[in-house]
Amino acid sequence: MIDMQKRAVVLLSGGLDSSTVLGLTVREGYACTALSFRYGQRHTVELERAATIARQFGSDHRVIDINIGSFGGSALTDEAMDVPTGGTQDGVIPPTYVPGRNTVFIAVALSLAEAIGAERVCLGINAVDYSGYPDCRPEYLAAYQTLADLASKAGLEGRGAVLTAPLLAMSKVDIVRAALDVGVPIGETWSCYQGGKEPCGVCDSCMIRDKALAEAGHPELTGPASPYHQG
Amino acid sequence: MIDMQKRAVVLLSGGLDSSTVLGLTVREGYACTALSFRYGQRHTVELERAATIARQFGSDHRVIDINIGSFGGSALTDEAMDVPTGGTQDGVIPPTYVPGRNTVFIAVALSLAEAIGAERVCLGINAVDYSGYPDCRPEYLAAYQTLADLASKAGLEGRGAVLTAPLLAMSKVDIVRAALDVGVPIGETWSCYQGGKEPCGVCDSCMIRDKALAEAGHPELTGPASPYHQG
Repeated sequence: MIDMQKRAVVLLSGGLDSSTVLGLTVREGYACTALSFRYGQRHTVELERAATIARQFGSDHRVIDINIGSFGGSALTDEAMDVPTGGTQDGVIPPTYVPGRNTVFIAVALSLAEAIGAERVCLGINAVDYSGYPDCRPEYLAAYQTLADLASKAGLEGRGAVLTAPLLAMSKVDIVRAALDVGVPIGETWSCYQGGKEPCGVCDSCMIRDKALAEAGHPELTGPASPYHQG
Repeated sequence: MIDMQKRAVVLLSGGLDSSTVLGLTVREGYACTALSFRYGQRHTVELERAATIARQFGSDHRVIDINIGSFGGSALTDEAMDVPTGGTQDGVIPPTYVPGRNTVFIAVALSLAEAIGAERVCLGINAVDYSGYPDCRPEYLAAYQTLADLASKAGLEGRGAVLTAPLLAMSKVDIVRAALDVGVPIGETWSCYQGGKEPCGVCDSCMIRDKALAEAGHPELTGPASPYHQG
Protein backbone atom coordinates (compact mmCIF):
# COMPACT_ATOMS: atom_id res chain seq x y z
CA MET A 1 0.00 0.00 0.00
CA ILE A 2 1.35 3.38 -0.95
CA ASP A 3 1.06 6.24 1.54
CA MET A 4 -0.74 8.93 -0.43
CA GLN A 5 -1.27 11.39 2.40
CA LYS A 6 0.32 14.77 1.80
CA ARG A 7 3.12 15.60 4.19
CA ALA A 8 4.13 18.87 5.82
CA VAL A 9 6.89 20.02 8.15
CA VAL A 10 5.61 22.56 10.69
CA LEU A 11 8.00 24.72 12.69
CA LEU A 12 6.64 24.51 16.23
CA SER A 13 7.97 26.70 19.02
CA GLY A 14 5.20 25.73 21.40
CA GLY A 15 3.79 29.26 21.29
CA LEU A 16 0.29 30.30 20.30
CA ASP A 17 1.12 31.18 16.69
CA SER A 18 3.00 28.06 15.63
CA SER A 19 0.50 25.83 17.49
CA THR A 20 -2.27 27.45 15.47
CA VAL A 21 -0.38 26.75 12.26
CA LEU A 22 -0.04 23.11 13.25
CA GLY A 23 -3.77 22.90 13.93
CA LEU A 24 -4.61 24.54 10.60
CA THR A 25 -2.26 22.25 8.67
CA VAL A 26 -3.60 19.09 10.32
CA ARG A 27 -7.11 20.24 9.51
CA GLU A 28 -6.11 20.61 5.86
CA GLY A 29 -5.35 16.90 5.86
CA TYR A 30 -1.58 16.94 6.02
CA ALA A 31 0.45 14.33 7.90
CA CYS A 32 2.58 16.72 9.93
CA THR A 33 6.05 16.50 11.36
CA ALA A 34 6.46 19.26 13.93
CA LEU A 35 9.99 20.55 14.25
CA SER A 36 11.41 22.33 17.31
CA PHE A 37 14.89 23.54 18.18
CA ARG A 38 17.11 23.56 21.22
CA TYR A 39 19.07 26.58 20.02
CA GLY A 40 20.45 27.94 23.25
CA GLN A 41 17.28 29.68 24.46
CA ARG A 42 17.15 30.74 28.13
CA HIS A 43 14.50 28.23 29.02
CA THR A 44 13.03 25.09 27.50
CA VAL A 45 9.47 25.35 28.85
CA GLU A 46 8.45 25.97 25.26
CA LEU A 47 9.94 22.64 24.14
CA GLU A 48 7.87 20.72 26.67
CA ARG A 49 4.81 22.61 25.54
CA ALA A 50 5.64 21.93 21.88
CA ALA A 51 5.72 18.19 22.64
CA THR A 52 2.32 18.45 24.32
CA ILE A 53 0.78 20.37 21.44
CA ALA A 54 2.20 17.99 18.82
CA ARG A 55 0.78 15.03 20.72
CA GLN A 56 -2.59 16.74 20.98
CA PHE A 57 -2.74 17.13 17.21
CA GLY A 58 -1.46 13.60 16.50
CA SER A 59 1.68 14.97 14.86
CA ASP A 60 5.20 13.58 14.84
CA HIS A 61 7.62 15.79 16.73
CA ARG A 62 11.36 16.20 16.31
CA VAL A 63 13.69 18.38 18.37
CA ILE A 64 16.95 19.42 16.75
CA ASP A 65 20.00 20.81 18.59
CA ILE A 66 21.67 23.78 16.91
CA ASN A 67 23.37 26.13 19.29
CA ILE A 68 23.23 29.42 17.42
CA GLY A 69 22.52 31.02 20.81
CA SER A 70 26.24 30.59 21.57
CA PHE A 71 26.95 33.23 18.91
CA GLY A 72 25.43 35.85 21.24
CA GLY A 73 23.61 39.05 20.43
CA SER A 74 20.09 38.30 21.66
CA ALA A 75 18.15 38.76 24.89
CA LEU A 76 16.49 35.38 24.26
CA THR A 77 19.78 33.50 24.58
CA ASP A 78 22.00 35.80 26.63
CA GLU A 79 21.34 35.81 30.37
CA ALA A 80 23.26 39.09 30.65
CA MET A 81 20.66 40.92 28.54
CA ASP A 82 17.23 41.90 29.87
CA VAL A 83 14.06 40.68 28.23
CA PRO A 84 12.20 43.82 27.12
CA THR A 85 8.87 44.82 28.64
CA GLY A 86 8.39 48.25 27.12
CA GLY A 87 6.38 47.35 24.02
CA THR A 88 7.51 47.02 20.40
CA GLN A 89 8.15 49.92 18.02
CA ASP A 90 7.78 50.01 14.27
CA GLY A 91 11.08 49.84 12.41
CA VAL A 92 13.09 49.07 15.53
CA ILE A 93 14.54 45.59 15.89
CA PRO A 94 13.89 44.39 19.45
CA PRO A 95 16.72 42.86 21.53
CA THR A 96 14.85 39.54 21.43
CA TYR A 97 15.83 39.23 17.77
CA VAL A 98 18.17 36.22 17.36
CA PRO A 99 20.50 36.82 14.39
CA GLY A 100 19.55 34.54 11.54
CA ARG A 101 17.27 32.33 13.62
CA ASN A 102 14.41 32.06 11.15
CA THR A 103 16.85 31.56 8.28
CA VAL A 104 18.47 28.64 10.10
CA PHE A 105 15.18 27.08 11.24
CA ILE A 106 13.65 27.26 7.76
CA ALA A 107 16.83 25.81 6.21
CA VAL A 108 16.67 22.80 8.54
CA ALA A 109 12.93 22.43 7.86
CA LEU A 110 13.59 22.42 4.11
CA SER A 111 16.27 19.77 4.59
CA LEU A 112 13.85 17.59 6.55
CA ALA A 113 11.07 18.23 4.03
CA GLU A 114 13.28 17.08 1.19
CA ALA A 115 14.41 13.98 3.09
CA ILE A 116 10.87 12.86 3.99
CA GLY A 117 9.11 14.06 0.85
CA ALA A 118 7.04 16.83 2.45
CA GLU A 119 5.54 19.30 0.02
CA ARG A 120 5.04 22.11 2.51
CA VAL A 121 7.05 23.85 5.21
CA CYS A 122 4.64 25.74 7.46
CA LEU A 123 5.63 28.73 9.58
CA GLY A 124 3.97 30.82 12.27
CA ILE A 125 5.65 34.06 11.30
CA ASN A 126 3.53 37.15 11.42
CA ALA A 127 4.33 40.54 9.99
CA VAL A 128 1.75 42.55 11.93
CA ASP A 129 2.64 42.42 15.61
CA TYR A 130 6.32 41.66 15.09
CA SER A 131 7.04 44.18 12.39
CA GLY A 132 10.45 44.96 13.88
CA TYR A 133 11.91 41.56 12.91
CA PRO A 134 13.57 41.63 9.49
CA ASP A 135 12.94 37.91 9.03
CA CYS A 136 9.17 38.05 9.45
CA ARG A 137 8.51 40.18 6.37
CA PRO A 138 6.62 38.97 3.27
CA GLU A 139 9.56 39.88 1.01
CA TYR A 140 11.86 37.76 3.18
CA LEU A 141 9.53 34.80 2.74
CA ALA A 142 9.31 35.33 -1.03
CA ALA A 143 13.10 35.39 -1.31
CA TYR A 144 13.33 32.17 0.69
CA GLN A 145 10.85 30.51 -1.66
CA THR A 146 13.04 31.44 -4.63
CA LEU A 147 16.02 29.90 -2.83
CA ALA A 148 14.07 26.74 -1.91
CA ASP A 149 13.02 26.32 -5.53
CA LEU A 150 16.68 26.38 -6.58
CA ALA A 151 18.17 24.45 -3.66
CA SER A 152 16.61 21.03 -3.69
CA LYS A 153 16.48 18.02 -5.95
CA ALA A 154 12.90 18.96 -6.71
CA GLY A 155 14.26 22.45 -7.31
CA LEU A 156 16.19 21.12 -10.30
CA GLU A 157 12.74 20.58 -11.75
CA GLY A 158 11.77 24.07 -10.65
CA ARG A 159 9.98 23.58 -7.36
CA GLY A 160 11.08 22.97 -3.78
CA ALA A 161 8.80 22.61 -0.77
CA VAL A 162 6.27 25.42 -0.54
CA LEU A 163 6.81 27.83 2.34
CA THR A 164 3.39 28.45 3.86
CA ALA A 165 2.77 31.16 6.43
CA PRO A 166 -0.99 31.30 7.02
CA LEU A 167 -0.72 33.88 9.84
CA LEU A 168 1.56 36.27 7.96
CA ALA A 169 -0.99 39.05 7.49
CA MET A 170 -3.35 38.23 10.39
CA SER A 171 -3.86 40.38 13.47
CA LYS A 172 -3.19 38.73 16.80
CA VAL A 173 -6.91 38.74 17.61
CA ASP A 174 -7.63 36.86 14.40
CA ILE A 175 -4.90 34.37 15.30
CA VAL A 176 -6.58 33.78 18.67
CA ARG A 177 -9.88 33.16 16.88
CA ALA A 178 -8.21 30.73 14.46
CA ALA A 179 -6.55 28.97 17.40
CA LEU A 180 -9.88 28.49 19.16
CA ASP A 181 -11.46 27.37 15.89
CA VAL A 182 -8.97 24.56 15.26
CA GLY A 183 -8.91 23.48 18.90
CA VAL A 184 -5.51 24.67 20.03
CA PRO A 185 -5.26 24.05 23.79
CA ILE A 186 -4.34 27.68 24.42
CA GLY A 187 -3.52 27.14 28.09
CA GLU A 188 -0.85 24.63 27.07
CA THR A 189 0.92 26.95 24.64
CA TRP A 190 3.84 29.05 25.88
CA SER A 191 4.60 32.43 24.33
CA CYS A 192 6.43 34.09 27.25
CA TYR A 193 10.04 35.13 26.67
CA GLN A 194 10.83 34.13 30.27
CA GLY A 195 10.88 30.67 31.84
CA GLY A 196 9.13 30.14 35.16
CA LYS A 197 6.00 28.32 36.23
CA GLU A 198 3.56 30.85 34.81
CA PRO A 199 3.94 33.38 31.98
CA CYS A 200 5.35 36.65 33.32
CA GLY A 201 2.51 38.71 31.85
CA VAL A 202 4.72 41.72 31.19
CA CYS A 203 7.25 40.83 28.46
CA ASP A 204 6.40 42.03 24.95
CA SER A 205 5.30 38.57 23.86
CA CYS A 206 2.94 38.14 26.85
CA MET A 207 1.53 41.64 26.38
CA ILE A 208 0.71 41.10 22.70
CA ARG A 209 -0.81 37.70 23.38
CA ASP A 210 -2.80 38.65 26.46
CA LYS A 211 -4.21 41.81 24.90
CA ALA A 212 -5.45 39.73 21.96
CA LEU A 213 -6.93 37.06 24.22
CA ALA A 214 -8.82 39.75 26.12
CA GLU A 215 -10.01 41.41 22.90
CA ALA A 216 -11.22 38.07 21.59
CA GLY A 217 -13.33 37.74 24.72
CA HIS A 218 -11.14 35.26 26.58
CA PRO A 219 -9.38 37.08 29.43
CA GLU A 220 -9.61 33.83 31.42
CA LEU A 221 -7.03 32.30 29.05
CA THR A 222 -4.33 34.81 30.05
CA GLY A 223 -1.86 33.88 32.78
CA PRO A 224 -2.66 34.94 36.36
CA ALA A 225 0.15 37.54 36.23
CA SER A 226 -1.39 39.32 33.25
CA PRO A 227 -3.00 42.76 33.69
CA TYR A 228 -5.69 41.43 31.33
CA HIS A 229 -6.43 38.39 33.48
CA GLN A 230 -9.98 37.71 34.63
CA GLY A 231 -11.64 34.59 35.78
CA MET B 1 41.80 50.57 20.74
CA ILE B 2 39.18 49.69 18.17
CA ASP B 3 39.64 46.53 16.14
CA MET B 4 39.45 47.73 12.56
CA GLN B 5 40.33 44.46 10.86
CA LYS B 6 37.68 43.18 8.47
CA ARG B 7 36.09 39.93 9.56
CA ALA B 8 34.95 36.92 7.55
CA VAL B 9 33.27 33.61 8.34
CA VAL B 10 34.71 30.79 6.20
CA LEU B 11 32.89 27.47 5.85
CA LEU B 12 35.66 24.91 6.31
CA SER B 13 35.08 21.21 5.67
CA GLY B 14 38.78 20.38 5.87
CA GLY B 15 38.86 19.51 2.19
CA LEU B 16 41.06 21.02 -0.49
CA ASP B 17 38.50 23.54 -1.77
CA SER B 18 37.39 25.12 1.50
CA SER B 19 41.00 25.16 2.79
CA THR B 20 41.97 27.11 -0.31
CA VAL B 21 39.17 29.60 0.33
CA LEU B 22 40.43 30.08 3.89
CA GLY B 23 43.95 30.71 2.60
CA LEU B 24 42.71 33.20 0.00
CA THR B 25 40.58 35.05 2.55
CA VAL B 26 43.39 35.28 5.11
CA ARG B 27 45.66 36.61 2.36
CA GLU B 28 43.10 39.31 1.59
CA GLY B 29 43.60 40.56 5.14
CA TYR B 30 40.46 39.26 6.81
CA ALA B 31 40.37 38.04 10.40
CA CYS B 32 38.71 34.68 9.75
CA THR B 33 36.45 32.48 11.80
CA ALA B 34 36.42 29.04 10.21
CA LEU B 35 33.14 27.16 10.71
CA SER B 36 32.75 23.38 10.53
CA PHE B 37 29.81 21.09 11.22
CA ARG B 38 29.25 17.79 12.91
CA TYR B 39 26.16 17.01 10.86
CA GLY B 40 26.00 13.24 11.05
CA GLN B 41 28.68 12.50 8.46
CA ARG B 42 30.07 8.95 8.38
CA HIS B 43 33.47 9.96 9.62
CA THR B 44 34.99 12.97 11.35
CA VAL B 45 38.51 12.80 9.90
CA GLU B 46 37.62 15.97 8.03
CA LEU B 47 36.87 17.80 11.29
CA GLU B 48 40.32 17.01 12.68
CA ARG B 49 41.85 18.18 9.43
CA ALA B 50 39.75 21.34 9.48
CA ALA B 51 41.15 22.14 12.93
CA THR B 52 44.69 21.63 11.66
CA ILE B 53 44.15 23.84 8.60
CA ALA B 54 42.52 26.60 10.66
CA ARG B 55 45.46 26.57 13.08
CA GLN B 56 47.90 26.70 10.17
CA PHE B 57 46.26 29.84 8.85
CA GLY B 58 45.95 31.46 12.30
CA SER B 59 42.16 31.38 12.07
CA ASP B 60 39.61 30.88 14.83
CA HIS B 61 37.70 27.63 14.42
CA ARG B 62 34.21 26.70 15.58
CA VAL B 63 32.50 23.34 15.21
CA ILE B 64 28.69 23.33 15.36
CA ASP B 65 26.51 20.26 15.91
CA ILE B 66 23.46 20.02 13.66
CA ASN B 67 22.33 16.51 12.94
CA ILE B 68 20.64 16.86 9.58
CA GLY B 69 22.24 13.49 8.71
CA SER B 70 19.56 11.88 10.89
CA PHE B 71 16.99 12.92 8.28
CA GLY B 72 18.48 10.33 5.91
CA GLY B 73 18.72 10.34 2.15
CA SER B 74 22.47 10.63 1.54
CA ALA B 75 25.38 8.24 1.08
CA LEU B 76 27.52 10.63 3.13
CA THR B 77 25.44 10.10 6.27
CA ASP B 78 23.78 6.74 5.76
CA GLU B 79 25.98 3.69 6.38
CA ALA B 80 23.51 1.56 4.45
CA MET B 81 24.21 3.42 1.21
CA ASP B 82 27.40 2.94 -0.83
CA VAL B 83 29.74 5.82 -1.55
CA PRO B 84 29.85 6.10 -5.35
CA THR B 85 33.02 5.41 -7.30
CA GLY B 86 31.73 5.48 -10.86
CA GLY B 87 32.37 9.14 -11.73
CA THR B 88 29.92 12.05 -11.84
CA GLN B 89 27.46 12.77 -14.63
CA ASP B 90 26.09 16.12 -15.78
CA GLY B 91 22.55 16.77 -14.66
CA VAL B 92 22.43 13.76 -12.34
CA ILE B 93 22.40 14.40 -8.60
CA PRO B 94 24.88 11.99 -6.98
CA PRO B 95 23.86 9.93 -3.91
CA THR B 96 26.41 11.92 -1.87
CA TYR B 97 24.08 14.91 -2.09
CA VAL B 98 22.85 15.76 1.43
CA PRO B 99 19.38 17.37 1.23
CA GLY B 100 19.62 21.03 2.10
CA ARG B 101 23.13 20.81 3.53
CA ASN B 102 24.55 23.94 1.92
CA THR B 103 21.38 25.86 2.71
CA VAL B 104 21.70 24.96 6.40
CA PHE B 105 25.45 25.61 6.58
CA ILE B 106 25.17 29.00 4.92
CA ALA B 107 22.24 29.95 7.18
CA VAL B 108 24.33 29.19 10.28
CA ALA B 109 27.31 31.05 8.81
CA LEU B 110 25.11 34.10 8.19
CA SER B 111 23.86 33.92 11.77
CA LEU B 112 27.42 33.83 13.09
CA ALA B 113 28.49 36.60 10.71
CA GLU B 114 25.71 38.84 11.97
CA ALA B 115 26.52 38.08 15.62
CA ILE B 116 30.26 38.84 15.27
CA GLY B 117 30.00 41.61 12.68
CA ALA B 118 31.64 39.76 9.78
CA GLU B 119 31.10 41.34 6.40
CA ARG B 120 31.76 38.21 4.35
CA VAL B 121 30.70 34.57 4.38
CA CYS B 122 33.14 32.60 2.24
CA LEU B 123 32.32 29.28 0.58
CA GLY B 124 34.27 26.64 -1.30
CA ILE B 125 31.42 25.69 -3.61
CA ASN B 126 32.35 24.96 -7.18
CA ALA B 127 30.01 24.63 -10.13
CA VAL B 128 32.44 22.93 -12.51
CA ASP B 129 33.32 19.52 -11.10
CA TYR B 130 30.20 19.16 -8.96
CA SER B 131 27.64 20.27 -11.51
CA GLY B 132 25.18 17.61 -10.32
CA TYR B 133 24.56 19.38 -6.99
CA PRO B 134 21.62 21.81 -7.15
CA ASP B 135 23.09 23.88 -4.32
CA CYS B 136 26.44 24.60 -5.99
CA ARG B 137 24.99 26.64 -8.87
CA PRO B 138 25.60 30.37 -9.39
CA GLU B 139 21.85 31.07 -9.45
CA TYR B 140 21.50 29.33 -6.08
CA LEU B 141 24.18 31.59 -4.63
CA ALA B 142 22.56 34.71 -6.12
CA ALA B 143 19.19 33.78 -4.58
CA TYR B 144 20.87 33.26 -1.20
CA GLN B 145 22.43 36.72 -1.41
CA THR B 146 19.01 38.24 -2.00
CA LEU B 147 17.74 36.40 1.09
CA ALA B 148 20.74 37.45 3.19
CA ASP B 149 20.18 41.06 2.21
CA LEU B 150 16.60 40.84 3.52
CA ALA B 151 17.20 38.63 6.54
CA SER B 152 19.56 40.47 8.82
CA LYS B 153 19.61 43.66 10.84
CA ALA B 154 22.02 45.04 8.27
CA GLY B 155 19.55 43.77 5.69
CA LEU B 156 17.02 46.29 6.95
CA GLU B 157 19.46 48.83 5.59
CA GLY B 158 19.70 46.80 2.40
CA ARG B 159 22.79 44.65 2.85
CA GLY B 160 23.61 41.45 4.70
CA ALA B 161 26.98 39.71 4.75
CA VAL B 162 28.37 39.17 1.27
CA LEU B 163 28.44 35.56 0.12
CA THR B 164 31.80 35.03 -1.53
CA ALA B 165 32.64 31.91 -3.53
CA PRO B 166 36.03 32.51 -5.14
CA LEU B 167 36.25 28.97 -6.58
CA LEU B 168 32.78 28.94 -8.11
CA ALA B 169 33.88 29.00 -11.74
CA MET B 170 37.39 27.53 -11.37
CA SER B 171 38.53 24.18 -12.69
CA LYS B 172 39.93 21.75 -10.14
CA VAL B 173 43.44 22.18 -11.58
CA ASP B 174 43.20 25.93 -11.06
CA ILE B 175 42.02 25.31 -7.50
CA VAL B 176 45.10 23.14 -6.89
CA ARG B 177 47.32 25.93 -8.23
CA ALA B 178 45.58 28.49 -5.99
CA ALA B 179 45.99 26.14 -3.01
CA LEU B 180 49.73 25.83 -3.63
CA ASP B 181 49.98 29.57 -4.16
CA VAL B 182 48.43 30.49 -0.78
CA GLY B 183 50.31 27.75 1.07
CA VAL B 184 47.56 25.24 1.80
CA PRO B 185 49.17 22.16 3.36
CA ILE B 186 47.56 19.91 0.79
CA GLY B 187 48.64 16.69 2.50
CA GLU B 188 46.72 17.75 5.58
CA THR B 189 43.43 18.40 3.76
CA TRP B 190 40.86 15.61 3.51
CA SER B 191 38.52 15.36 0.53
CA CYS B 192 37.76 11.62 0.61
CA TYR B 193 34.13 10.59 1.14
CA GLN B 194 35.31 7.63 3.21
CA GLY B 195 37.02 7.65 6.62
CA GLY B 196 40.12 5.52 7.09
CA LYS B 197 43.80 6.28 7.63
CA GLU B 198 44.49 7.23 4.02
CA PRO B 199 42.15 8.56 1.31
CA CYS B 200 40.55 5.67 -0.60
CA GLY B 201 41.69 6.99 -3.99
CA VAL B 202 38.60 5.68 -5.79
CA CYS B 203 35.54 7.63 -4.58
CA ASP B 204 34.36 10.44 -6.86
CA SER B 205 35.87 13.10 -4.62
CA CYS B 206 39.31 11.40 -4.53
CA MET B 207 39.25 10.86 -8.29
CA ILE B 208 38.48 14.51 -9.10
CA ARG B 209 41.10 15.72 -6.63
CA ASP B 210 43.86 13.30 -7.56
CA LYS B 211 43.41 13.82 -11.29
CA ALA B 212 43.80 17.57 -10.75
CA LEU B 213 46.85 17.13 -8.52
CA ALA B 214 48.47 14.99 -11.21
CA GLU B 215 47.56 17.48 -13.96
CA ALA B 216 49.02 20.31 -11.89
CA GLY B 217 52.29 18.37 -11.77
CA HIS B 218 52.01 17.08 -8.20
CA PRO B 219 51.21 13.36 -8.31
CA GLU B 220 53.26 13.00 -5.12
CA LEU B 221 50.50 14.87 -3.25
CA THR B 222 47.90 12.20 -4.00
CA GLY B 223 47.28 9.45 -1.45
CA PRO B 224 49.19 6.16 -1.83
CA ALA B 225 45.96 4.39 -2.89
CA SER B 226 45.43 6.73 -5.83
CA PRO B 227 45.93 5.47 -9.39
CA TYR B 228 47.61 8.84 -10.02
CA HIS B 229 50.08 8.44 -7.17
CA GLN B 230 53.80 8.80 -7.84
CA GLY B 231 56.68 9.59 -5.61
